[in-house]
Amino acid sequence: MKNTSYKNRGMFLENIINDSNTYYNSIEKSLIYKKPTPIKVLNVVYPTNKSHLIDKAVYSNISTLDYNGIYRGKYIEFDAKECHSKTSFPLSNIKSHQLEHIKKVIKQKGIVFLIIYMNDEFYLLKGEDIVKYTNEEKRKSIEYEYLKEKGYKINESYTPRLKYLDAVDKAYFKE
Amino acid sequence: MKNTSYKNRGMFLENIINDSNTYYNSIEKSLIYKKPTPIKVLNVVYPTNKSHLIDKAVYSNISTLDYNGIYRGKYIEFDAKECHSKTSFPLSNIKSHQLEHIKKVIKQKGIVFLIIYMNDEFYLLKGEDIVKYTNEEKRKSIEYEYLKEKGYKINESYTPRLKYLDAVDKAYFKE
Repeated sequence: MKNTSYKNRGMFLENIINDSNTYYNSIEKSLIYKKPTPIKVLNVVYPTNKSHLIDKAVYSNISTLDYNGIYRGKYIEFDAKECHSKTSFPLSNIKSHQLEHIKKVIKQKGIVFLIIYMNDEFYLLKGEDIVKYTNEEKRKSIEYEYLKEKGYKINESYTPRLKYLDAVDKAYFKE
Repeated sequence: MKNTSYKNRGMFLENIINDSNTYYNSIEKSLIYKKPTPIKVLNVVYPTNKSHLIDKAVYSNISTLDYNGIYRGKYIEFDAKECHSKTSFPLSNIKSHQLEHIKKVIKQKGIVFLIIYMNDEFYLLKGEDIVKYTNEEKRKSIEYEYLKEKGYKINESYTPRLKYLDAVDKAYFKE
């Protein structure tokens, strides 16, 4: 029960992915990082000659996805989304500029996907399937059933906490 | 003369590269962005329910390079360095964690390099050559002559302002 509840905290998904990247990068399986959160600096003061302090800034928007890097020689980029509904993933979670970016990465032959955390399960949903869904469906959300059918289930473990590169192998490197 | 002097300002190289990326990305030749500058947020206040203001933050270090993305289906990452000496590029410009990162990208078969602006010229210097130089040479700087010999000269133009992907073609995609 404790195990389920801690997962509801906002940073859970980000933390579990960062931990997994740290592990994967350390064993040289990949080189994947979270991009820094973009912040618009409005004012900087210099308390001493050698120090600085930003005393006015705001978070700004990013048009790309949060994580990128290399895996198996390929460019890889993804975002992580927590879904609180048990039945469907609202497409409003994917901002229009993010969807445009997903299309651009596909066009450049990069690997691009979302990791969706829903019903205490993790799924990799390929960018190609997201684009197809938004083109063909009029619904404003992705049903859980669709996610189970088209998504690639990601298993949890001790190291890495989220074995998402196994799902990447299945989705993109079918042998 | 005016043309030379504006180049001495600190943001010149960053601006010319950002402009070039905007152009290259718009014609779908590549998908390359500057990563946001990492900032460590120390305090956030909420003037109203729907707004936020960061009133205490500092710039923090980044261990990766400033620009990354995809080009010709490959992962690409680079940094831009302005060199004010006319005779040699001090290796102190490359932080040790950046050098480690360059090695990691090479190991993962990514394209990684520096764009060095020196003597009013632009050069692409491959990560492989930087690693080799730092391993073999005891000097603490790269001579201008070495840069001219091993580097790939980057031409300026109107669009893009810096034709650095032509140099990438020469350095990595010899036909």
